Amino acid sequence: MTRTLLSSSVQQSEHLWLAAAQRLQQKNPLVQCLTNAVVQQFSANVLLAVGGSPAMVDICEEAGQFARVADAVLINLGTPRREQQAAIREAAHVAHETKTPWVLDPVAVGALTIRTSLAHELLAYEPTAIRGNASEIRALAGHSTGGRGTDTTDTIDDAVKSAQQLYERSGAVVAVSGPVDAIVAGDDIHYNTYGHPLLTKITGGGCALGATMAAFLGADSRSPRDAVIAATTMYTLAAQEAAARVRGPGTFHAEFIDSLAHYAEVGLAQERTA
Amino acid sequence: MTRTLLSSSVQQSEHLWLAAAQRLQQKNPLVQCLTNAVVQQFSANVLLAVGGSPAMVDICEEAGQFARVADAVLINLGTPRREQQAAIREAAHVAHETKTPWVLDPVAVGALTIRTSLAHELLAYEPTAIRGNASEIRALAGHSTGGRGTDTTDTIDDAVKSAQQLYERSGAVVAVSGPVDAIVAGDDIHYNTYGHPLLTKITGGGCALGATMAAFLGADSRSPRDAVIAATTMYTLAAQEAAARVRGPGTFHAEFIDSLAHYAEVGLAQERTA
Amino acid sequence: MTRTLLSSSVQQSEHLWLAAAQRLQQKNPLVQCLTNAVVQQFSANVLLAVGGSPAMVDICEEAGQFARVADAVLINLGTPRREQQAAIREAAHVAHETKTPWVLDPVAVGALTIRTSLAHELLAYEPTAIRGNASEIRALAGHSTGGRGTDTTDTIDDAVKSAQQLYERSGAVVAVSGPVDAIVAGDDIHYNTYGHPLLTKITGGGCALGATMAAFLGADSRSPRDAVIAATTMYTLAAQEAAARVRGPGTFHAEFIDSLAHYAEVGLAQERTA
Repeated sequence: MTRTLLSSSVQQSEHLWLAAAQRLQQKNPLVQCLTNAVVQQFSANVLLAVGGSPAMVDICEEAGQFARVADAVLINLGTPRREQQAAIREAAHVAHETKTPWVLDPVAVGALTIRTSLAHELLAYEPTAIRGNASEIRALAGHSTGGRGTDTTDTIDDAVKSAQQLYERSGAVVAVSGPVDAIVAGDDIHYNTYGHPLLTKITGGGCALGATMAAFLGADSRSPRDAVIAATTMYTLAAQEAAARVRGPGTFHAEFIDSLAHYAEVGLAQERTA
Repeated sequence: MTRTLLSSSVQQSEHLWLAAAQRLQQKNPLVQCLTNAVVQQFSANVLLAVGGSPAMVDICEEAGQFARVADAVLINLGTPRREQQAAIREAAHVAHETKTPWVLDPVAVGALTIRTSLAHELLAYEPTAIRGNASEIRALAGHSTGGRGTDTTDTIDDAVKSAQQLYERSGAVVAVSGPVDAIVAGDDIHYNTYGHPLLTKITGGGCALGATMAAFLGADSRSPRDAVIAATTMYTLAAQEAAARVRGPGTFHAEFIDSLAHYAEVGLAQERTA
Repeated sequence: MTRTLLSSSVQQSEHLWLAAAQRLQQKNPLVQCLTNAVVQQFSANVLLAVGGSPAMVDICEEAGQFARVADAVLINLGTPRREQQAAIREAAHVAHETKTPWVLDPVAVGALTIRTSLAHELLAYEPTAIRGNASEIRALAGHSTGGRGTDTTDTIDDAVKSAQQLYERSGAVVAVSGPVDAIVAGDDIHYNTYGHPLLTKITGGGCALGATMAAFLGADSRSPRDAVIAATTMYTLAAQEAAARVRGPGTFHAEFIDSLAHYAEVGLAQERTA
């Protein structure tokens, strides 16, 4: 990719995220999260900050019931206990049936058999978006990965090819997270250069981005690509702004959520004065 | 309710919470929490801040064992996995048998079948207190609710009637959380106007209040009504004070816990100089 | 113990932790955590701060798979649900077989039957280190405890004897946490006086120290004793430094992680300029 492409891409995305953030604040979408045990609190707080209404309903029987009223569903495979596996199938089934937008976050797929098999099975329920790092996206597309998968620009270029194949197969917009993020919908590739390394020094930095994508999709799913780009732009801009105020990952955790809430308010304020 | 009633009510509650907070610090009650996965860390940190000793023992067999030594038990139905459902029944059974005070937080009861059925079953174990928002209290009393249940003053007035019915049926003091909180014990209704909207922008703001009520009851359960009012007053006052120091929900999360710990120390300091 | 012994002990440990922290940053060890539900987020953030790579893989089948690639394993018995019990057995079995260093944190063993029985069973897999408070170490060694086990210097002296017996039986370095920490390997006893009471006012203060020990062992397990001492020294020094900047446990939580990350960077910087 060239720097010229990047900067025009960034300008477009700035307009995108503000309008999308306004719709999110107005609609306050109900976002059902079936996510991993480590990041539940952080993800819920991020969703509240951007204007969503999080509901961590991930037990059997209720997961399907709730998916019928949710505006969007997030399925994150970070710690898929047996009962959660069944609840995940319920929710994905209902989301598919009711055409509720849903996001798949295939955490650590590849070598670990339970989640890898589950992730492949879930593709049949046609996720609206898929978010992962380069090695996860490559593994989900069926390509071998370098194990722990450090995210360099090179592996992102490889991952973009995998993302394109996943898009062809599942119809999902695919977001590859890394130092530069790529949002892929066939030949349409958007690169995002906002962000900060501190996002990788707190647990859930990627997982809560997946939840944020679900919130934006829950507010407006007419263009899944635009919703995923808007979520990524707002999230990484807020991280960048917060990072400038802190001295380490502990204070960043708190300031990042403040920045997200501040950006959400900015969107709302512009709406009110418009 | 009239403003006059409110302000005299508030004055009484200020004396209440200080004395109760002192007893809590002295006794350091052991509070067993069977609570939802999202709020466990926050609830434990809130309990430590107010002077309780949290123990999240919610697995089968041990849940009943531990309830025999706990000073109070919190049962929160936010994510009742199958094993936790069984553990919850064990703990409620023991708490009832040993007359250990316990708090029921019927998160999202109403449309979701598992937790709704479980909540009704648990009423037979006579909770000492029940805490929920207006729609949860109405649902538990058997009244239909408006789904997502925004908490306006009107719905609080409706919820107070439901709370009175729940009190008649179960003997539990019922706390309805909202912009104005109502603590109901039959015809005795206490209104609390302290608090801050930021409490609704962090996950667990209500759940940790339920845990705090359990801590106050564990320190002194002679008057469950007074314990619940003291917990609510201290908790919402601390939120109000912390909110004045922050710029968003991320920093509020940390400062709120500092404020709770500070208020607990104030209580202790007054005791020491008395 | 005498103060003279303490201060020479402290000087040695300062050299130890800096070199060990450097190795940790360079190796970025993959630390598998099978830990309790309350402290997962905090433990992961602490591991990221010190330079480890946390992976909370604790579901059946995958737990054993992952232990084959992990550099170290932490097993913490705070909330051992049924599925996690099975996953814990898998991971301990593999760690033993592959000689991967692993840490056992026997949270609240003694009166609670499930975890007590599991902890004793796990000793057969020869943990590299065991970390607990005085009452937990005494209970694991088979001695009766005073129930809730307040950690005074006296009980630490008692616990050191229990720790020595555990060392004889299992070969594990045993760390007794308290106002003064003792790291015990037979007759070799190291006392650590760094630390701050605020570590006991946030949930997971002890649990995340166990995770930190696993990270240090994952970077260099040639001397388990030295790795455990280095982890304890860095962790408690960071707590002490952070405590000076805060007004309560809420802000301490964030500042402590900043301090850990700062200390990790200091180690790395010294390496780079060496």
